[in-house]
Amino acid sequence: MSRFFSSKYAGLVPYVPGEQPRSQEFIKLNTNESPFPPSSQALRAAAEAARRLNLYSDPECRALNAKLAEVYHLAPEEILCTNGSDEILNFAFMAFCDADHPAAFPNVTYGFYKVFAALNGVPYEEIPLREDFSVNVNDYVGLNKTIFIANPNAPTGLALPLADVERLVKGNPDSVVVVDEAYVDFGGESALPLVHKYDNLLVTMTFSKSRSMAGARLGFGAACKALIADLNAIKYATNPYNVNGMTMAAGIGALEDEEYTRANCRAVMETREIVTAALREMGFELGDSKANFVFPRHPKIDGRKLYEELRARGILVRHFDTPLLARHNRITIGSREQMNRLLDALENILEEC
Amino acid sequence: MSRFFSSKYAGLVPYVPGEQPRSQEFIKLNTNESPFPPSSQALRAAAEAARRLNLYSDPECRALNAKLAEVYHLAPEEILCTNGSDEILNFAFMAFCDADHPAAFPNVTYGFYKVFAALNGVPYEEIPLREDFSVNVNDYVGLNKTIFIANPNAPTGLALPLADVERLVKGNPDSVVVVDEAYVDFGGESALPLVHKYDNLLVTMTFSKSRSMAGARLGFGAACKALIADLNAIKYATNPYNVNGMTMAAGIGALEDEEYTRANCRAVMETREIVTAALREMGFELGDSKANFVFPRHPKIDGRKLYEELRARGILVRHFDTPLLARHNRITIGSREQMNRLLDALENILEEC
Repeated sequence: MSRFFSSKYAGLVPYVPGEQPRSQEFIKLNTNESPFPPSSQALRAAAEAARRLNLYSDPECRALNAKLAEVYHLAPEEILCTNGSDEILNFAFMAFCDADHPAAFPNVTYGFYKVFAALNGVPYEEIPLREDFSVNVNDYVGLNKTIFIANPNAPTGLALPLADVERLVKGNPDSVVVVDEAYVDFGGESALPLVHKYDNLLVTMTFSKSRSMAGARLGFGAACKALIADLNAIKYATNPYNVNGMTMAAGIGALEDEEYTRANCRAVMETREIVTAALREMGFELGDSKANFVFPRHPKIDGRKLYEELRARGILVRHFDTPLLARHNRITIGSREQMNRLLDALENILEEC
Repeated sequence: MSRFFSSKYAGLVPYVPGEQPRSQEFIKLNTNESPFPPSSQALRAAAEAARRLNLYSDPECRALNAKLAEVYHLAPEEILCTNGSDEILNFAFMAFCDADHPAAFPNVTYGFYKVFAALNGVPYEEIPLREDFSVNVNDYVGLNKTIFIANPNAPTGLALPLADVERLVKGNPDSVVVVDEAYVDFGGESALPLVHKYDNLLVTMTFSKSRSMAGARLGFGAACKALIADLNAIKYATNPYNVNGMTMAAGIGALEDEEYTRANCRAVMETREIVTAALREMGFELGDSKANFVFPRHPKIDGRKLYEELRARGILVRHFDTPLLARHNRITIGSREQMNRLLDALENILEEC
């Protein structure tokens, strides 16, 4: 840090993204990317939009919001598009948390929440999961803090039923509840329909996973108009042209090709069930993931060691070096072929144990 | 604002971007966009990158940083790419300003500086320009505040010579000086070479203007490695994948086609000189712009009135409703044909006055 860096960030520990190896040799199962290419309609729309790149993108994202509104049965004013869903999560920490409104989230969840809290000088409480990594909704009812819940949760993959999410939202009428549904398209139940019922609910989503657009950076939030207006105030004071024109067009293209998205999600879920069964067969312990990844541990091998053995065999998975997660690895569900190679490698590693 | 909105933003007045009309009927001279399409090399690279959108973009922007380093004679570690240059400006307000390190900038400049200051709770001083809208460097020497200088300045178009910028940087050794060079490619002198000489200088640039990529959202900052490390700490705590894959590729493509950029800049400058002469001929008063816009006023007609008369004739320019600027309009230099239509419309309006 230079001598000019503001002391308010003295203790800031930035988020560490998963490795992005330079070489193409790795089977990349470490950042929950889709094994399928983006929709051809998304690609066509992006290429068409690129020809007008000399003009600014629409800061209001009117065309994209209209399409999202149609697909998700919302009003355009109930939607805000962002440069990935990380951006709307940060906007939510900015808009709805401060020293008087601390944040709360599970002690095992998306690692960025605590970074956003630290960045914005927001006190936060980490609420322990149950031993089986499930969220105990009772811990959150009447909490009176701004709550961030990833559903399905990461890196566990476990999902709360919609009734539990509603209990949580209803049980905190004077606090905003943010439900981060980055992984909802792989078997979870979305809280989007509750947006019309509760004025304290913000649902965030991303095009990175189910729509194969991680590299395009497109996320959005849905909430009542008043919450979206708050978030728009932050956006217009931060980066009004936050979504570029190619991504905006690609997003519309993807939404016009929902059958492709649904088919890809079905394929990922089918592969996930096959992989889950095979892992259990090998002695791995893992919950029933509703996301595009699994989170197994094995009684015979430490998580870090398994990560390294896989890496040595050209397969990247995500290991988290924290006490609670040290025995596990988060493994993205890739293509059938990639997962067969993973299973072969795991068998090989376990034999050598 | 909802009842949940943090009170720390109670007085926040967001930035208002120039109009983005839905219809294509307007001649758009209001947001300083390039009249030229992006480089065909940029388009090809973006389309190629789109096919890999299912994978995250490189958070380190290694390939783009390497290309920028080559073009601008910097080390890759002296560069940080962002989602438009607004993002790096906000990062600079976050990293280098706080209650103990207030900001300072001219009272007539890019309107976003004061929004960033308000967003980040940073006190700021607005230093009056001279009556002819020029910056008096003496006002800034030994100021001991984090200084933001747009050079060329907006919306005046006036530029400081490099020697003056250096005096300003040298005269504030214990404060960061941010030189915002969004418009430097149209005749200004860049302070980039000073990055190796001073540890308190951050130069910011954009691909929006000279490289016809406003809709792609690509900006960058150049500074000594320690300042870039500070800004990276902010980036990795805000939005690690801030630049999407298509934009990253388009940026590299544009940088491989520098002759196209230079030719477009020459064309804009030639048109600007013709327009400047024609405007003076009509009785307009305006300085010698070094940007891709001019900022004229006319003794016979109020700025707001002129804006409205042009709008009624299908031409959009930018009017700022503040006392100091109310007589002026900022007019982007478009194509020769667009400017001929502007000049015809102005003649017509003045005849009717």
